[in-house]
Order: sequence, then structure tokens, then C-alpha cells
Amino acid sequence: MTAPLHETRTPGAGRALPDTQQGMRRRNLARVMHAVSAEGSLSRAAVASRIGLTRAAVSTLVDELIRWGLLEELGPERPGRVGRPGSALAVSGRGPAGIGAEIGVDHLAVCAVDLRGAVRARAVRHSANRGRAPEPVIEELTGLIRRVAADAEREDLWPAGIAVAVPGLVARDGRTVVRAPNLDWHDTDLGVLLPSGWPLTVDNEANFGALAELWLGDGTPRDFLHVSAEIGIGAAVVVDGGLLRGTRGFAGELGHIPVRPDGPACPCGGRGCLEQYAGEEAVSRAAGLEPREDLVGLLAERAEDGDADVRAALRDAGTALGIALTGAVNLLDPETVVLGGALAGLSPWLLPSLETELAERTAGPACPVAVSTLGPQGPLLGAAHSVVRAVLDDPAVVAGRS
Amino acid sequence: MTAPLHETRTPGAGRALPDTQQGMRRRNLARVMHAVSAEGSLSRAAVASRIGLTRAAVSTLVDELIRWGLLEELGPERPGRVGRPGSALAVSGRGPAGIGAEIGVDHLAVCAVDLRGAVRARAVRHSANRGRAPEPVIEELTGLIRRVAADAEREDLWPAGIAVAVPGLVARDGRTVVRAPNLDWHDTDLGVLLPSGWPLTVDNEANFGALAELWLGDGTPRDFLHVSAEIGIGAAVVVDGGLLRGTRGFAGELGHIPVRPDGPACPCGGRGCLEQYAGEEAVSRAAGLEPREDLVGLLAERAEDGDADVRAALRDAGTALGIALTGAVNLLDPETVVLGGALAGLSPWLLPSLETELAERTAGPACPVAVSTLGPQGPLLGAAHSVVRAVLDDPAVVAGRS
Repeated sequence: MTAPLHETRTPGAGRALPDTQQGMRRRNLARVMHAVSAEGSLSRAAVASRIGLTRAAVSTLVDELIRWGLLEELGPERPGRVGRPGSALAVSGRGPAGIGAEIGVDHLAVCAVDLRGAVRARAVRHSANRGRAPEPVIEELTGLIRRVAADAEREDLWPAGIAVAVPGLVARDGRTVVRAPNLDWHDTDLGVLLPSGWPLTVDNEANFGALAELWLGDGTPRDFLHVSAEIGIGAAVVVDGGLLRGTRGFAGELGHIPVRPDGPACPCGGRGCLEQYAGEEAVSRAAGLEPREDLVGLLAERAEDGDADVRAALRDAGTALGIALTGAVNLLDPETVVLGGALAGLSPWLLPSLETELAERTAGPACPVAVSTLGPQGPLLGAAHSVVRAVLDDPAVVAGRS
Repeated sequence: MTAPLHETRTPGAGRALPDTQQGMRRRNLARVMHAVSAEGSLSRAAVASRIGLTRAAVSTLVDELIRWGLLEELGPERPGRVGRPGSALAVSGRGPAGIGAEIGVDHLAVCAVDLRGAVRARAVRHSANRGRAPEPVIEELTGLIRRVAADAEREDLWPAGIAVAVPGLVARDGRTVVRAPNLDWHDTDLGVLLPSGWPLTVDNEANFGALAELWLGDGTPRDFLHVSAEIGIGAAVVVDGGLLRGTRGFAGELGHIPVRPDGPACPCGGRGCLEQYAGEEAVSRAAGLEPREDLVGLLAERAEDGDADVRAALRDAGTALGIALTGAVNLLDPETVVLGGALAGLSPWLLPSLETELAERTAGPACPVAVSTLGPQGPLLGAAHSVVRAVLDDPAVVAGRS
């Protein structure tokens, strides 16, 4: 389970599958799963009309999916309709589950999501990971993963794969953390540290956050820029329902867009990068606060209480975000910008100045800015759901498991 | 022939075709065309091994393509090889041709390219189009198109479509020029003005320039940022071999990335945009030159002669380009940046300061910058080739024409 699994551009079409009879059958199995998944429950006839195959062809596919434990029959539909009553189908609440894991600077979290998208098990632990070596962190995370997997197994679920969200740049191999400045990890292959036996994907937390927004958000379009922050500022670019990853997997480094080219030096080597104005450290310094844990919570609390210094610091951060986003919007022409992660909680004080910059600097109508409803939950949910989506996108991968 | 034709991400796979037996056959026809096109000439057996189909299946497809006039037999391969001698196949130099057209601020150009990629007819006319109404410009262009089409027809070619490159933003309908500031055109539907009867695509000149670079450039990767300039500065983002167009078709507006947020006001509504430092007008003003035609040629000449003011102006433009490109590279992580259009001719004086900015502002190795060998020819060639690619990507569209 490597990165391309997240990049399916046509949900349910599994376009990466080979263009053979067998590939076509696998794509059609995916179409059936997605059709039922989108509706909650659906008869065979309704599936057939939705995906444009014959009732007979759909029945064969459905029988296979039931045999694999991915679909289940809900029993006959209520009588009174015209024609022979069909049995309604639903995605199974047992069988494969996606395990999502998150390595934060001050916490670890793991959850299990079933094929219906419900969170069925969860474990969160406070953990001061800043500057801590990868081995003990992953050992602790592995303990949480095993606990969540065991909880899930008690509910007749089995892990179809693990996806791990990290606050750093991940190589396109989907397992190597190239650089996670706030953990101080460099070129760390998590594949050799995490439990083997399950397909594994490691990705940047902003990417998983964006996927969560795409899959779980309310009316999220298929082209958007997702901006999030934990300590640094990251972004993910979603184009036509897929992540834009970049050549090395490093796309979305919004935090190092030059905002004022002669501004303060940034550890990245540049000057006046966005993080020097809107990063957590810069904002807390401008607000006169000492660095501490849950600084975002404190900033929100003080701003809520009307603290003028905090409000001014957030207003200036919003201005810097607006300048950087003007450039990003000019380059990408997204349908919307979504503020996620820690930025979601601070949006009441960031948005006014951010939107002013965007509006003043744009010739036509400015790109709308939305606030994520998932907030800090996004990356963990996105990770778990990416495993679930991989099963829906190619159900044949679980053949023979159940 | 609308915009999506340019966006095939897997050459020869025609992934946009429906996922049916018929769609599979059309994709396989495309694979045969692309395999032969890539090699110049190829036997049926070599095509079969290259695209992973049986010799018999390939023969059926090839016979169809010969019947449609898209492939031709070159006669038996030279003897002395093992096995029955196969007849070598080549893409036909007759039949469908792509008509490319370009509307420049001071010129109009049209060319016809055959399926082999050779330019077979061409017409260029000096034309002062700045501020001129669309109707007379398109009337003049139509005259050139008819002349080139007639020249092509004398060589047994027929126009499979027309693609028009314009210096402005084009809507995703592939025919409406939303805004072309240097022509002073707004919301102009070229579809009603151009000759009917041929499939038509209108696109931004930077997009066509980028496609030319992708298809005709020497070793151009599948992920790059193409920066070009005529009067304004435009860019095109190529991801995985396809154009990133944006929600409204406006992606790539590099010229309005804020470089110095408090800098001079820009007609776009912003301040300190890249065009205020590296646009043709800004550079000529900084160099102490009066606006005139072929300003780029004059700048290059003066810089070549060692004019200190011109060299300083180009150095400063390179610095501004470097700052804007740092942001773009951080966001997109392209494999390379290609300087095309007028920038290609000025690159000796732009590159040093541009590359210095990129290197100093990038944490890891800086993104390499290449100079287009197509230069100002790119957009016209890209337009004509886009029509040719559409035929190679779905040869069945010409069935019954020849």
C-alpha cells in the first residue's frame, strides 16, 4: 500500500488498474462498492442503474463482494413496490478496517475505521516527542496500534493496512520521513520500525488532513488548497480529487513562501518566509507569550477574552497568510481555500485580515476561504480513511482474507 | 475538441474513454499509434511486445488504422533476421493534420503539423493587435488559416482541428477569452468568430508553450513549471504530463504573485506583483528604454553589448523571478523550471540572479532551471501538436473521414 493509493482521481473507478478484462472486472467491483457506500443501502437493481451495468452483471459482482465479506444483505426491501422485491445491500460493518495513526509533537493517536466510515476503536496518549529519537516514539506508537487492532478484532474487524500521519516531509516511497524539523527526524524509514505484516503508508499530516476534508467535509469541492498548522504551516493541494504530491513528495510547503523577501532569516535558509509571520512561534512571540504546550488553545482563549496583543498578533498573521495565499491562489486557481488543523480554531481572528488581503490583491472575485469542521481531527481520520478508500477502490485486494 | 483533450495523463492510454469493450478497443488503438509514433517505424510484432497484446490482436488494430489512413506499411523489413519478415509500420504523413494558430500582440501565425510531427505549411503576418477589436483580428487570422489549410490539402492533409493560442486567460470551455489585457479583450467567445466545421480549442499561450516543451523538448520531465513572457509573465503548471488548469482555467498566474507586498500598485489590484519587477514594461523602464515593438530583442542586443543599465535591470528582474519562483517551487515541488518565450532569449542575464535567489531560499538542493530551446515558437507548435495528440490519443475520432 504505497502513496498512489491516495491518488485515485475517479472514486470507484480504480483507474490505476490494468486495462484488461481482469482490470475491468476489478474496476466494476469498485464501482459497486462505491455506489453502495455512497447511498448507505441500495438494491442490486439500483446499483445496476447507477453504474450502467446489467442487473445480471451486477449480481455476479455483488455475490463476489458478499463472499469476501465486504457487502451484506439487509433482507428484502419493504413490499408494496412494483416488481419482485430486491434485497437491500449495505457495506459490511465487519471485515477490513483502516488503522490510522498520528505522530504529533506532543501526542500519539491511533484509530480504527470500518468500511462504513465509523470509528470503532481509538487510543490517544500524551507524549513529548520534540527532539525524541524515532525508535522509542515508534515503539510507543506500535503499542497503541496493537491495542487498537486488538479492540477492532473483538468486533470482527481486521486491519487492512496502517496509515501514519507525521508532521514533516515524506518521500514518495510512502515510508521515509525526509525531514520533520519539530521532531528533529531526518531520513527516517518508518517501514523498518513499524510492525510488519500490514500494508503501510506514511504521509504528511497536511496531506491526510486534506484527504479527510475531501472525503468527510461538508460539500468540499474537488479542487482546493488545504492549509493547516501544528507548529509549522503546511498545505496540501488537491486537484480533481487527488493530492498533488510533487516530484519528491514535497509539494505544499506554504510555510516557506517568501512573504517579505528581506524579512527575518528562517531556518529553511530563506528570509521572510510565511512561518516567520504566521508560525506558532512567531505569533506567540508577537503576542508576548512564552512557548508552551497547547499554545494554540492559549492564543484562542486570550483572543476570546479580548487580549489586544494577542488579537494584533493574529491579525498580522492573517495578513501574512493572505499575502502567501494570494500567490498560491494565482498559481493554482483552486475553488476554495480550507483552513484546517490549529488554524481552524484561530480562524475568527485570522480571517478578517486574511480575507482583506486576498480581496485587495485579486483582480476578479477573491477565492473563498472556508474553515474546516474537522480541525485537529483531520489528519488521523484522513489516515484511517485512506486505508478504507484503498479497499473500496480495489476490493479484490482483500479476496481470500475472510 | 475541448480542453480535456490536452489533459490525457497517460499518453496513448486515452483514460477518458469509457470503460467498456468499445472503450478498451479505442484505448488499444491509441496505444498502437503512440508506440509506432514514438519509434518512427515498428513491425507488428514489435508493437505487440511493446504494448503487451497478442500479435493477432495488434494485427486487427493495425489493419483498422491503415484503413483509416493513420498508419502506412513501409514494405518488408530487411531480410537476415530470424523468423518471417514483418512489414514495418509508420505513422502516415498524409491524412489528418493539426492546425495551430497564434494571436500575438504584434503578429498572427498559423501552421499545419502532420501526424508525424512535421510542420507542413506555415503563414506569419505582422499585425498591430494591441487594443484592436476581436472581429478584424479574427477575420485576418481566418484568412491565414484558410491559406494554410489549402496548402496542407495540396499535400493530401486535412485539418483535424484548430487550436488557437492567445495571450490571456481562457475559460474552461476552451473557446472564451475571459481577459487578454494587452489586446484589451474581455469575455470574447472566439468560437463564434472562427470558421466553423473544424473542432476548435482556444488556450492560453503559456499552456500551449508548456505542452510544446513537454512533447517536443529535449528530455523535459513530466512535472515542471513553464514560465514564459510576451508582454505579461505567465506560467503553466505541468503535473504528471498534464496541464493543471485550475477551477476556472486561470492557474499559472505567476505574474501576479506578490514579490514585495508593499511595492508599486499593479493593474490587477495588488501591490508589488512580479510583473511590476520583471514584466516587459517594468524592465524597459528600469533600463531607461522607451516602450516599442520587439523590446525583448532590443534588451538582448543592449545586454549583449554590455549596457550596464540594461544588465542591471535584467539582474533585478531575475531576482524578482527568483523570489516568486521560490514560492511556486515550494508549493508545487516540480522537477524543473523551464524558462520559455521571450524569457529564453534573455536568460543569460536573468539566470544568475534568479538562480542565486532560488539557491539561497531553498533548504535542500534548489530546483534546476532550464531554458527552452523552442523559445517563442513554443505556443504555435504546442497548439498544432495538441490537435495531433488528440488524434493519436483517440484515433477512432477520424474513422470514416479518409
